[in-house]
Amino acid sequence: MTTSKKPKVAILMGSESDLSVMQKASDTLKRLGIEHRMAVASAHRTPKLVHDLVASAEAEGVEVFICAAGMAAHLGGVVAGQTVKPVIGVPLNSKLDGLDALLATVQMPRGVPVATVAIDGAENAATLAAQILGTSDKKVAERLAGERATNRASLTEKAKTMWEAAA
Amino acid sequence: MTTSKKPKVAILMGSESDLSVMQKASDTLKRLGIEHRMAVASAHRTPKLVHDLVASAEAEGVEVFICAAGMAAHLGGVVAGQTVKPVIGVPLNSKLDGLDALLATVQMPRGVPVATVAIDGAENAATLAAQILGTSDKKVAERLAGERATNRASLTEKAKTMWEAAA
Amino acid sequence: MTTSKKPKVAILMGSESDLSVMQKASDTLKRLGIEHRMAVASAHRTPKLVHDLVASAEAEGVEVFICAAGMAAHLGGVVAGQTVKPVIGVPLNSKLDGLDALLATVQMPRGVPVATVAIDGAENAATLAAQILGTSDKKVAERLAGERATNRASLTEKAKTMWEAAA
Amino acid sequence: MTTSKKPKVAILMGSESDLSVMQKASDTLKRLGIEHRMAVASAHRTPKLVHDLVASAEAEGVEVFICAAGMAAHLGGVVAGQTVKPVIGVPLNSKLDGLDALLATVQMPRGVPVATVAIDGAENAATLAAQILGTSDKKVAERLAGERATNRASLTEKAKTMWEAAA
Amino acid sequence: MTTSKKPKVAILMGSESDLSVMQKASDTLKRLGIEHRMAVASAHRTPKLVHDLVASAEAEGVEVFICAAGMAAHLGGVVAGQTVKPVIGVPLNSKLDGLDALLATVQMPRGVPVATVAIDGAENAATLAAQILGTSDKKVAERLAGERATNRASLTEKAKTMWEAAA
Amino acid sequence: MTTSKKPKVAILMGSESDLSVMQKASDTLKRLGIEHRMAVASAHRTPKLVHDLVASAEAEGVEVFICAAGMAAHLGGVVAGQTVKPVIGVPLNSKLDGLDALLATVQMPRGVPVATVAIDGAENAATLAAQILGTSDKKVAERLAGERATNRASLTEKAKTMWEAAA
Amino acid sequence: MTTSKKPKVAILMGSESDLSVMQKASDTLKRLGIEHRMAVASAHRTPKLVHDLVASAEAEGVEVFICAAGMAAHLGGVVAGQTVKPVIGVPLNSKLDGLDALLATVQMPRGVPVATVAIDGAENAATLAAQILGTSDKKVAERLAGERATNRASLTEKAKTMWEAAA
Amino acid sequence: MTTSKKPKVAILMGSESDLSVMQKASDTLKRLGIEHRMAVASAHRTPKLVHDLVASAEAEGVEVFICAAGMAAHLGGVVAGQTVKPVIGVPLNSKLDGLDALLATVQMPRGVPVATVAIDGAENAATLAAQILGTSDKKVAERLAGERATNRASLTEKAKTMWEAAA
Repeated sequence: MTTSKKPKVAILMGSESDLSVMQKASDTLKRLGIEHRMAVASAHRTPKLVHDLVASAEAEGVEVFICAAGMAAHLGGVVAGQTVKPVIGVPLNSKLDGLDALLATVQMPRGVPVATVAIDGAENAATLAAQILGTSDKKVAERLAGERATNRASLTEKAKTMWEAAA
Repeated sequence: MTTSKKPKVAILMGSESDLSVMQKASDTLKRLGIEHRMAVASAHRTPKLVHDLVASAEAEGVEVFICAAGMAAHLGGVVAGQTVKPVIGVPLNSKLDGLDALLATVQMPRGVPVATVAIDGAENAATLAAQILGTSDKKVAERLAGERATNRASLTEKAKTMWEAAA
Repeated sequence: MTTSKKPKVAILMGSESDLSVMQKASDTLKRLGIEHRMAVASAHRTPKLVHDLVASAEAEGVEVFICAAGMAAHLGGVVAGQTVKPVIGVPLNSKLDGLDALLATVQMPRGVPVATVAIDGAENAATLAAQILGTSDKKVAERLAGERATNRASLTEKAKTMWEAAA
Repeated sequence: MTTSKKPKVAILMGSESDLSVMQKASDTLKRLGIEHRMAVASAHRTPKLVHDLVASAEAEGVEVFICAAGMAAHLGGVVAGQTVKPVIGVPLNSKLDGLDALLATVQMPRGVPVATVAIDGAENAATLAAQILGTSDKKVAERLAGERATNRASLTEKAKTMWEAAA
Repeated sequence: MTTSKKPKVAILMGSESDLSVMQKASDTLKRLGIEHRMAVASAHRTPKLVHDLVASAEAEGVEVFICAAGMAAHLGGVVAGQTVKPVIGVPLNSKLDGLDALLATVQMPRGVPVATVAIDGAENAATLAAQILGTSDKKVAERLAGERATNRASLTEKAKTMWEAAA
Repeated sequence: MTTSKKPKVAILMGSESDLSVMQKASDTLKRLGIEHRMAVASAHRTPKLVHDLVASAEAEGVEVFICAAGMAAHLGGVVAGQTVKPVIGVPLNSKLDGLDALLATVQMPRGVPVATVAIDGAENAATLAAQILGTSDKKVAERLAGERATNRASLTEKAKTMWEAAA
Repeated sequence: MTTSKKPKVAILMGSESDLSVMQKASDTLKRLGIEHRMAVASAHRTPKLVHDLVASAEAEGVEVFICAAGMAAHLGGVVAGQTVKPVIGVPLNSKLDGLDALLATVQMPRGVPVATVAIDGAENAATLAAQILGTSDKKVAERLAGERATNRASLTEKAKTMWEAAA
Repeated sequence: MTTSKKPKVAILMGSESDLSVMQKASDTLKRLGIEHRMAVASAHRTPKLVHDLVASAEAEGVEVFICAAGMAAHLGGVVAGQTVKPVIGVPLNSKLDGLDALLATVQMPRGVPVATVAIDGAENAATLAAQILGTSDKKVAERLAGERATNRASLTEKAKTMWEAAA
């Protein structure tokens, strides 16, 4: 169901331990047929790697970046400082319930936004990436709309059964 | 410098008092030549209006929604529940330094992301909207890259002068 | 001990996983003899379902809504935007100790209140619903007063034993 | 436009300085034609007064209590411990942006709910009181529905003008 | 080692489940030879019991109250409103890491202080009670000073061994 | 109205700028006829001074210490580490609404309590000091009880007038 | 009183508006006779400038970096990722009382520390830089010790006067 | 690989239970060949011990102090008040996710900085200590640079493999 061989989305995360959460972003993109790349790259430990991956991702045709990090989560901001492609930030919970990562991701200064999703919101980052691609890729938009309609119908069905059961 | 007569972005805000902050989003879009619409529409006080505006915006060709609200900021989430277009949320500060609006905007459940920017981040919402449009509109992407380069050059110039002055 | 066959209270919750907490609201209403309905319905995933359930609940005679949701908890606000019946909000803890859900539920704008109870306060939501119904239904008020008196007497008894034991 | 000479709502507040905020609750009730009483009574400085006022209010026919307090806001909880009528709590902002009052009001234990509205939400407390009375008083319910419809129509009108002006 | 048969300290707590934490306050008082009473009494569920226990405790000679509660912790404030004896508040952690109970205990208005100790600080509440009694009871003061000196000597001994081991 | 020429309370504060808040503690003690000393002494800038003042205060007969500090408020803890007299901590608001000072004051480890009052609660610190002295000084206890009764009567009077005016 | 013509400290800040706070860091270094450089350089808006300044600062002999930024304060972390010299972070207050900048500065991952000082703590950043240089530069260490002793003596003098005045 | 027999770093912690976290600071220093001492010493329970250890550490040649404490974490501040050597603070998580310890450590007043690292950041405290020593000890600086380069190379290698695997 892949729409293209060239990657459209790059998923970067600050530490290997983030992989268990971020795999879900990859799975969601796969389900939506969106080609993507994934790597562990830290704004602090491997800044040049981050720089190189962003540059090579852009060269390969990546249109959206997903950056996940915990604690003083700088990855999204650093990537956003290097590209004018949309950058989605996923704050990860490792300390303080993820509040540190949330504030470090979302509170970006003027001119350099990071599109922040919920704490540990890997799947929503992928969905948002798909929505962005969907603004120009009809197939992706249709898949998103289709999934939502199916999901909605099934939830509605269950809800009505539950509602009436209580009656 | 307008690229199109059809609006590409819709700016919605929960209350008339939000206009002083959100005017900057409109100004930024104007500067970037992006046609847009703007309205006050509340998820709570005028839910049907929100529904109708989203529907008519989509019909007019809007590709990105910017939703700004304070306190229990539900506008972004409600719009995101109605469309699969990307929805950008701007948490506005009216109480609790805007922490209430930030959490009410960003902590969306699976399947329905809101791309959240900083508290009162009206300009960044517009920049992010432009970045999203720029994934398929080369002119917008070039303007963003151009602005950033110009801005960067001028800041770099100033910084070097300052650095050497201190020498 | 049911006072009426027509439901007086509707319990809505944003996700199936909320059921383990919210079952206690249903149990409490049952214990107080208050007919009610219950369903999973999300402000974001199934907004039309929410709309339809509220409309049909009002048609069936529901006088109080209980809405439980976690994270960016919008369900209470969305229901409160559709009805002028009292809406009780139960913020559920799934992230940030429930602070996100609390703020997203309680910080409602002028004209559209949500009567918020404690984080995960399912039983208190039911008690509050009963208190509201009790303003016009003497039997319910008497049951509430009776339960409280019984409970108070038993606690007082225990406390006195404990107090004197320490003497 | 008063519906009854007997008071239906009692507004209590912890300190004289709360009056500037809480007057709006009284004004809202007046606008809705709901007879009410108001007094300054502190859970800490004048506990017996609180006790006496609650007792006499109940004797006079009061069906709903509105309790407003700041800081360690105990008034709502103390009143809720004395009556099984619904008690609405208004957390007032004097320190810590009102977070202290919010938590001290809303986090009530099982069996003794306080229906909490937004920080400084005096008007919404009155609206909620009216909604509660409206469950058995058709006139009040109609006024609430009428106000909301009028308000909605006027906001919708303005929004459409704004939307089209931007076109 | 008991200094008196008449109780000097009363320990009240809001719920039976608080006993596991508060037993340590009782144990500490016992170790210091301070006669005391203990009971479960809730500001909300059994307000009259609280009132009666405070009155009878004062009559029996109690000089210091220790009040422990979680969530919207009102017990300390309510007792402080009834007596001019010093009242020590112990905020208990049940939700929000105990931040709700801390703020609800410490943020008391002018004229009615509650001497607040750390979250779940049962032992420190007992120590503080002993310090207060020690201002007029030399034996208690001496025991406190003795314990501290012993404790200090033993910690200092261990620390020096550790310090030199590392050398 | 002074009860004794020897000071019973020492008020220490971390910085000269704290004097405007803490003067109220001194005024309250004066009003209650309690002899006291006051000084600016910092746990960080003048630790030896703190040590010397505590020693000389104890030698002069001081029974209660009041320690006020902002930010990383260590003064109370440091004094509590030197004496087994009760130490009252007043967290002062200079940053973060005083939350930093509150947590740095109240969260003391086992064995070394600081009796913490509200943020900027200078008067309550003095009242609490008086309550502590009142456990063995009948005159002070009577003044406290007298003040409270007078205050209560006057508030009750006003409240009744207000209540009936609304009738 | 300058100890060297080659700069020992570089002060970087994220935005021109930070200069009013950070000038105090420069003034403090000047007072201590420590040669330094200062520039505005943003981790997001001018990442290459940050990189170049750090490289040229290291080449010029800079031993300590001071990095000040507000909101999602990434500057300290980004500089710390490029050098193994000590990096001091100053979180600046522009939103949320500076809590966002504090967490984004201090919560650094393993291997890349940022030595964080208080919110808006420009002078302490300079003092800490001097303390670090003082570990190998005796003159700087002596100046620091001298300043502290002088300061301590003057504060102690004042405190004693105040203490006795109250007597 | 030890560079010197005289200790360069002293690690102090407030309680024996902190040892499991702080052992990692010692291990890191050992790995970097930095001689150090370690002891449990509490600002509150053993203030004189803290004083003596700091004095003897300075006499032995210690250039950097690492101070770890939880809750109302005063140890760093107290040590910083006694020396003009750099003091590194490690806030430890025991309550409130470590937010109390963080604020009590970092929010130091003018003139007495504590270089604060992340909550439970024992290794980073050691790394920062090494960076400080590295400003005058070339060998330490080279080891730090070497470790970072090795670490970076290995992470970069892994990342590239992962990136291409996804291709």
